[in-house]
Amino acid sequence: MPDERAFQDYYPDDVAHCYGCGRLNEKGLHVRSFWDGDETVCRYLPAPHHTALPGFVYGGLIASLIDCHATGSAAAAGYRAQGRAMDTEPALRYVTAALKVDYLAPTPLGPELELRGTIKEVKGRKVVVAVSVRANGIETAKGEVVAVRLA
Amino acid sequence: MPDERAFQDYYPDDVAHCYGCGRLNEKGLHVRSFWDGDETVCRYLPAPHHTALPGFVYGGLIASLIDCHATGSAAAAGYRAQGRAMDTEPALRYVTAALKVDYLAPTPLGPELELRGTIKEVKGRKVVVAVSVRANGIETAKGEVVAVRLA
Repeated sequence: MPDERAFQDYYPDDVAHCYGCGRLNEKGLHVRSFWDGDETVCRYLPAPHHTALPGFVYGGLIASLIDCHATGSAAAAGYRAQGRAMDTEPALRYVTAALKVDYLAPTPLGPELELRGTIKEVKGRKVVVAVSVRANGIETAKGEVVAVRLA
Repeated sequence: MPDERAFQDYYPDDVAHCYGCGRLNEKGLHVRSFWDGDETVCRYLPAPHHTALPGFVYGGLIASLIDCHATGSAAAAGYRAQGRAMDTEPALRYVTAALKVDYLAPTPLGPELELRGTIKEVKGRKVVVAVSVRANGIETAKGEVVAVRLA
């Protein structure tokens, strides 16, 4: 069972307003990410208005979920690489330098989505995260994010 | 002066609910795209809650704008390639197969954004669109979308 605090719960208040994952953004998506062994996992239930063609999830939402799950995963990986817990100082926060999404199949709107992140590289300030998106256990999209630590 | 009807205004009602660009999605972003010569243009004013780090636009919103502006541009390019007006049948509608975004600089939250699309390729059911995002005249992100026409 993963830690009950999500990666995003450790973001300092002054950088916790992101529309995708900031806990302090009242209108945001509130993406929450956790370790599951060496993978990271995020579960998200799209709202009915997050539609593309009727019955399917909007691709921009999928891109947003991948983006925020990956930057959260990058932060978690950054702490791990330094051998530190996420509640220790200095806080690590990452931004997206590049985002790539391949839409493999229409993602059904209705079930909870599961995003799984794999840390591909941690090098200096850069972390590369691959993300797989599944609905009903079937992979419908995969993405890759290059995240860079804020100075 | 561009046509007053946006590309998205021509989408048939049954495929006009997209969160990003569907005119019938009450909670959506309502992306609207137009020809400007051989380029396509979309202007969008992010809302205050579309924040990333305070003062900057959420990257997932930028990805969403690129996505919908590009699929709209793909549709417009598809009609042009067939020598048809957008209000003629059969309607052409495209979905995203792949989306790539490079975030070149933080995008300031406040000014209207301008997205410009360039049609890179129209081949069979596939259209490739490059998109440049500018704020205050400065390019802050660029993207590329592979769009595929629905059968």
